[in-house]
Parts: sequence; structure tokens; C-alpha cells
Amino acid sequence: LVGGSVALGLRGRGWHVQGTDVDGARVTEALERKVIDAAGLDPDSEITFVAVPVRAVAEAARRALQHTTGLVTDVASVKGPVVVAVDSPRFIGGHPMAGSELEGLDGADPDMFTGAVWVVTPTPATDDASLATLAAIVSDLGAEMVALTAERHDALVAVVSHVPHLTAATLMRVADERATEHAALLRLAAGGFRDMTRIASGHPAIWPDICFENQSAIVTGLDALIEGLGEMRTAVAQADRTQLLRYLEQARAGRANLPARGVRAEMLSEVRIPIPDRPGMIAEVTMLAAELGVNLSDIEVAHSAEGDRGVLILLVETERTELFRGGLLARGYRPAISRLQ
Amino acid sequence: LVGGSVALGLRGRGWHVQGTDVDGARVTEALERKVIDAAGLDPDSEITFVAVPVRAVAEAARRALQHTTGLVTDVASVKGPVVVAVDSPRFIGGHPMAGSELEGLDGADPDMFTGAVWVVTPTPATDDASLATLAAIVSDLGAEMVALTAERHDALVAVVSHVPHLTAATLMRVADERATEHAALLRLAAGGFRDMTRIASGHPAIWPDICFENQSAIVTGLDALIEGLGEMRTAVAQADRTQLLRYLEQARAGRANLPARGVRAEMLSEVRIPIPDRPGMIAEVTMLAAELGVNLSDIEVAHSAEGDRGVLILLVETERTELFRGGLLARGYRPAISRLQ
Repeated sequence: LVGGSVALGLRGRGWHVQGTDVDGARVTEALERKVIDAAGLDPDSEITFVAVPVRAVAEAARRALQHTTGLVTDVASVKGPVVVAVDSPRFIGGHPMAGSELEGLDGADPDMFTGAVWVVTPTPATDDASLATLAAIVSDLGAEMVALTAERHDALVAVVSHVPHLTAATLMRVADERATEHAALLRLAAGGFRDMTRIASGHPAIWPDICFENQSAIVTGLDALIEGLGEMRTAVAQADRTQLLRYLEQARAGRANLPARGVRAEMLSEVRIPIPDRPGMIAEVTMLAAELGVNLSDIEVAHSAEGDRGVLILLVETERTELFRGGLLARGYRPAISRLQ
Repeated sequence: LVGGSVALGLRGRGWHVQGTDVDGARVTEALERKVIDAAGLDPDSEITFVAVPVRAVAEAARRALQHTTGLVTDVASVKGPVVVAVDSPRFIGGHPMAGSELEGLDGADPDMFTGAVWVVTPTPATDDASLATLAAIVSDLGAEMVALTAERHDALVAVVSHVPHLTAATLMRVADERATEHAALLRLAAGGFRDMTRIASGHPAIWPDICFENQSAIVTGLDALIEGLGEMRTAVAQADRTQLLRYLEQARAGRANLPARGVRAEMLSEVRIPIPDRPGMIAEVTMLAAELGVNLSDIEVAHSAEGDRGVLILLVETERTELFRGGLLARGYRPAISRLQ
């Protein structure tokens, strides 16, 4: 699904795309459907996307690093173990936060990543040029890059993705158990319940690996949710109107703060940062943006007029530029900011 | 919102609709927007819908019973306390399971109930003719009537509506608390999280009353969810693949069993049941249907050819007719079943 979508997206943008799969029949299918141009790894490839289940990423990534000279990235939902297992300046963990209920090439969609967040997890060892290339490709696929450490990524997706998934399944399971006794129950399941349990309709096969690879963050997240539900139970059982309203108001305000997708150009500013002569700079700047909640709508590395030194060009929401400028100055950068017209 | 939608739906179907409100300005607004034909209660009204917050239903319903001769129903989300407090053969609790993010007359929509489930909660004391009238109106508004005891209704909506609502709020609250520390978190909130927390964006004001009126069922439901999440946590913490897959598979199967909305006519059969000479028959038959999971697509009471005795005519899914026939025969009814063409 994700590999096919990346392939279609890049082919549509003029790239030559080769692909391989443990299942030879799928390679044939991808060729026939014109998802890829040719079979097999290309030793001269600029980038290789490893789109395999999380447990198989490390081995496949190491093989790609061995057989190609370009950068290698992956698309799995858990990043910590992968980043530890694949220690190369040319490997950068990735997680495009987009998907579909469909599976395999049937669901492949060149526009799957439009407006989606694409997390990348560079390390201090990451090669700057590789990160700049990955950033440009992620932007080109229409996604918003968010740079995080692998550990931070895993803790956050546990909260916004893995725990909600297990919760949807549990809500559905609780309802289902009562439905055996009370056939009317499922007829009463209206829009809200359907929305909340939709993700439980996906295929379970990928989830055990995700849960075990991200075990401690998920257990921590489940504990926090169970504690929060216990507090909610107390407020209901004690008829504590003030506390109950406080919880619900906090949730409502938080929901209203979920970032809107798709920022209009007139709300954006361009931030140009001369790239100083030290490695890891792009990783540091992009991670700083993520820490400050500054969304990077576009990332580009341009050569400056002065010669071989480069300039990192970022598009950010205008209302966040002062915050971002403060952070950049504090880290020793010299940003120049101008509003887009 | 709900009262305005009922008014618009009935006016659009040729009814004369009068309405009143504690807020006189709202009555004026409803008149100006042509949501109602006239202000005030009509002593000769055939039906009165009490659309007020759950705590205020009993008093408003008693006033309507006193000032009108027709049947009275309500639309609140909790039924037990209301049905106990308003003891009249002309009062039937109701709960249309439809809504909108909008509030008040701005969100009023004559088609709000199309395809929605509308629970009614008759008691042994309920007048048959009143229930038949309510059933016909619910059908006319495009909804599917499900008859349940008030206690059963409250236990089931706790599971499929109230607990999911509190869970969405708690998921959002847990995420929000971490977002203060990690600004990137909310950027990672993709489609699944947005779906699961959508209902937490609604106005909290109505929820304390719902929670307190349906306190014991909600506490029971929260306990079941907390227990289920604890089991999920154990499966993750112990890396118990078999158990985790079992939970997720059960949820997936349950989700797939959620009844589809809108059954096509060629899948329906007509069930005609002569109405014997005893009261409470419509309530008993419709509750039996709900208990057996048999969906009633249409309910009508017709006078039989023999004279003043009536016939209850129900439309049910063809694949459920044998089950329903068995239940009806066991209760002493003599149903005649024919497929719609």
C-alpha cells in the first residue's frame, strides 16, 4: 500500500522507479500495473524506500545500504528499534502518517501523502545531504515533514495512533460482548460510535509487531488512558459537575487546537538560514521546528550566491515566525524572514 | 436542534405544527423561520414532542399531558428517570439517535432522522393507539423505530454512546496534556485520531445531566472498558501475540456486524399480525423484534376487513422473518408473512 503509493507518486513526478518484493508475483503485478518501471534494486538509486512490516525493516534496510549508494529510508510506524539496528549516515527513519482501509497495490494512490505529516527521525550521525534530499522528496510528495528523534516519535505515536487503535478495538469488543445478549445494541450504534470504531475494522495482522516494538510507550499510554477513564468514572459516580465539565472543556479545547491541514500561501513566510560549516544542521533546525510546534510547509536547500555554501529555505506559518526566529537565534543561526505575497 | 428538526420534518409532510419554548425570542425566531405555524400548545394536538434537556423533561411532559389530549413523547438521551416520573398511558419515552455538530435552529434539518434509529420506550401501561400513532410518525420521518424498555435503552446507550463520548474526551485530554510538553504531538494526530475524538468537540453543557441521570449504566460501562483496556495492556506488556490478535479479530468481526443503514425493498418481507383483544400488544411485538435483532423498517396499524379489529403490519428483513415468526408464535400471535416484490 505505502510502497506502491510512493512509487506511483514519484513516477508521476518524473522519477524512474525500481522495486522488489519477497513475493515475486507482486513485482510482476507492479510492473504490469505500471507502478514501477523495472524490477530489482538499482545500485545507483538516489533513494530507496523500505516498505515492509516493522520487524523486517532493519534487515531490508541494511541490504539496501549494501547494494545501493543513495540514501535509504523506511515507512514503518515504530522508529526506535529500526534506528538503533540500522546505524548508517545514509539511513534515515521515516513514517508517513497516511493510509487507507485498502490493502496492497489495490489501495496504492499517488496522492496518498498530500497534506499528511511525514515524520523523519535523523540522528546526530545522519548525513546532511541525505536529509536534504529526503526533505525535498517528502515535500514533493505533498507531505509536511516533521523531524523528531526516534524515541520522541515512538512516544507520541503511541498517544495519537497506537493507543487510540487499541481503544477503538476495546470499545468495539465491549459492545460486541453485550450485543450477543442484546441484539438491539448494535442497531443503536450511531455516527459517533461508528466514527470511533472505524479503525478497528482494519486488518489486525500488522498490530502485534507494532505493539511489541513500541511496547513501553504503548503500555505507558494505556496506563495514562486507564487513569484518565478512572478519573472520569469518579466524576460520574460522585456526580461532580465541576470536574466533569472541566474534563470535557479541556478535551473540547484540545480538539479545537488540532492543527488544520493545508495552510494558505498568504499565511506563510519564508525563512532563509545560511548553512554554517558544521554537520547535522538540517536535522537540528527541523527538530527545533517540531519542538516549537512550527510546521514546515516546504523545505529546500539552495546554493547561495557566494559559492559552495548553502542556504536552507523553509516555509512556515507567519504567526509562528517570531517564535521560530527566537529559537534559531538561541542556537546560533542567522535566519532571514520574509512574508510570502 | 432536535425539536426544530421534528417541526420542519412534520411541516414538510403537511402537519400543522405549534411550538413553545422557555425562551420567547426562540419562539419568535421559529415563527419567522417558518419552523412552526403558530406559538403555544394546541389542546387538540395529536402529538407533542418535548425537546428539552433531560432534567427538564418530566415537568414539561406533565404540563403537555395536562394541557393537551393527544400523546406526548420526548427526545432525551436517558429514558429511565423520565418514564418513572411521567406515569401516563399517553406518554411514551423516545430517543431519536441522530444529531449534528450544529446547535439550535441553525442546525434544524427536516431530514435529520432519515435512516436513523428512533428508540421508543413503552411500558405495560402505554396506550396501544398512542404507540401506533408514534410508530407511524417515526416511520414517516424516515427513522427506524426500535422499541425497548427504558432500562434496556439506558444500559445500551451507555455502551454505544455515553461511554464512547467520555472515552473520546479522555483520549483527547491525555493527548492534550502531552501536547503542552511536546508541541509536535498534535501535528501527528492523523485521520484515525481525528475520527475518534470528533465527538469530543461538541458542547459539554448537556453531558453532566446525561451522566448523572444514567449514572449507574455509565459507571458499569466505564468499568467494562477499563477492564478491557487492562486486558489489552497485559497482552501488550506480555507480548502475547495470540491474545492480542484474538482481541483485535473480535473487534474487527464486531465492527463488520454493525447493521447497514438502509435496507432495499427487495430484501424486505411484510409481516401481518391480527391484533388480539388485549392491551400492550404493539409494545410487546415491537420489543420482541428489538430483542431478536429484527429491524422494523415500517410499522402500520390497519383496520382489518372483518370490522373493528386491527392488523399490525410490519416490514422486516426477509432473512430475519423465520426467527421473528418463531418468536411471535411462541408469544401466541398468528403472523402472516409475504415477501415484498
